[in-house]
Amino acid sequence: MSKKVAVILSGSGVYDGAEIHESVITLLRLDQRGAQVQCFAPNIAQLHVINHLTGEEMPESRNVLVESARIARGNIKDIREADVDDFDALIVPGGFGAAKNLSNFAVEGAGCSVQPEVLALAEAFAEAGKPVGLMCISPALAAKIYGPGVTCTIGNDADTATAMNKMGATHEDCAVTEIIEDKARKLVTTPAYMLAQNISEAASGINKLVDRVLELTHENDA
Amino acid sequence: MSKKVAVILSGSGVYDGAEIHESVITLLRLDQRGAQVQCFAPNIAQLHVINHLTGEEMPESRNVLVESARIARGNIKDIREADVDDFDALIVPGGFGAAKNLSNFAVEGAGCSVQPEVLALAEAFAEAGKPVGLMCISPALAAKIYGPGVTCTIGNDADTATAMNKMGATHEDCAVTEIIEDKARKLVTTPAYMLAQNISEAASGINKLVDRVLELTHENDA
Repeated sequence: MSKKVAVILSGSGVYDGAEIHESVITLLRLDQRGAQVQCFAPNIAQLHVINHLTGEEMPESRNVLVESARIARGNIKDIREADVDDFDALIVPGGFGAAKNLSNFAVEGAGCSVQPEVLALAEAFAEAGKPVGLMCISPALAAKIYGPGVTCTIGNDADTATAMNKMGATHEDCAVTEIIEDKARKLVTTPAYMLAQNISEAASGINKLVDRVLELTHENDA
Repeated sequence: MSKKVAVILSGSGVYDGAEIHESVITLLRLDQRGAQVQCFAPNIAQLHVINHLTGEEMPESRNVLVESARIARGNIKDIREADVDDFDALIVPGGFGAAKNLSNFAVEGAGCSVQPEVLALAEAFAEAGKPVGLMCISPALAAKIYGPGVTCTIGNDADTATAMNKMGATHEDCAVTEIIEDKARKLVTTPAYMLAQNISEAASGINKLVDRVLELTHENDA
């Protein structure tokens, strides 16, 4: 039986949405490992739109679900349609979209909140004991999803790690090619482009994360 | 010596720009094989903007270079800055952007023209005997770049193949996992999402294309 994995996207582009390389590498590895994938995104406006050539804000508005559909080639659903019972695991790629659209961590830091529909879905996976993979900056949401004591990584950025620890997480430094696993919670995290100097480095950790998340789904086999 | 490869992007999203999966798989394979990559795109308006969730046109305007920068994580240049002497090979991912922004093939079919800066750069690679890889719908530009008699593939779509043959190309049917090589011209093509049913299938042909293009660069080693 092929495993079913929900992937939450947060737009399309590293500076205001889902990191595109991380998202595609995740989708590729899941498909290569025989998993069935359904992408979801919140049907909300992006925090803002960044010109990825200049880094400047653009005077326009874009929708997270509509832009995420670019990465998913149209095969994406409103996160309100996601039911944890339909899936074996959840993976959330990074990019600033995780900290700007899926949450307001980029603005509020340790005082952040997670977008309610995203939080509800992620909490449902946690409560069901189904494995979750968070990469890049997405592990900043881990303390909100799992509560105090959750172990995870965003690599080795001291300021971000401090904010995460303040929220109740236990941050562990991690190399870009490796993963950190909270075995009790079945949470797998990897730094990806928080540390990656090139796309191959990002892929090395992401592939390990995907493989481990899929392995963990077998612990829930009847 | 690592090989230097220019990649031309045409926006960011299959329906109005560069196909994101094809672009990222290309960048990943090139990096994994040790190539140095520089992305380029024309600094022009997209033909139009498509909502990738609904397939409908959106009443807004986007710039091909600015949107392509999303795939390139900002590391992209105006195609006017590209000099064939700086590179060993050229690769053009597909997506409707190749037929809407890099050319007007989507509108004009066999009567199409190629965006002048894109045509000039591609012709320079052809004239220098440097290998070129075109995937998905991008091979529709091959007859304009190489002139009559060039052999290439977009898979097996009869209407597209007929238009390409009318332009002077010799279309050969090809499986999604394979490549077609015009040995005299050092042109490598693969169907990618013209045929791919999933991202793994797209990757299988694209990886072969990248590998073969890099192999062909060695024929030009002094």
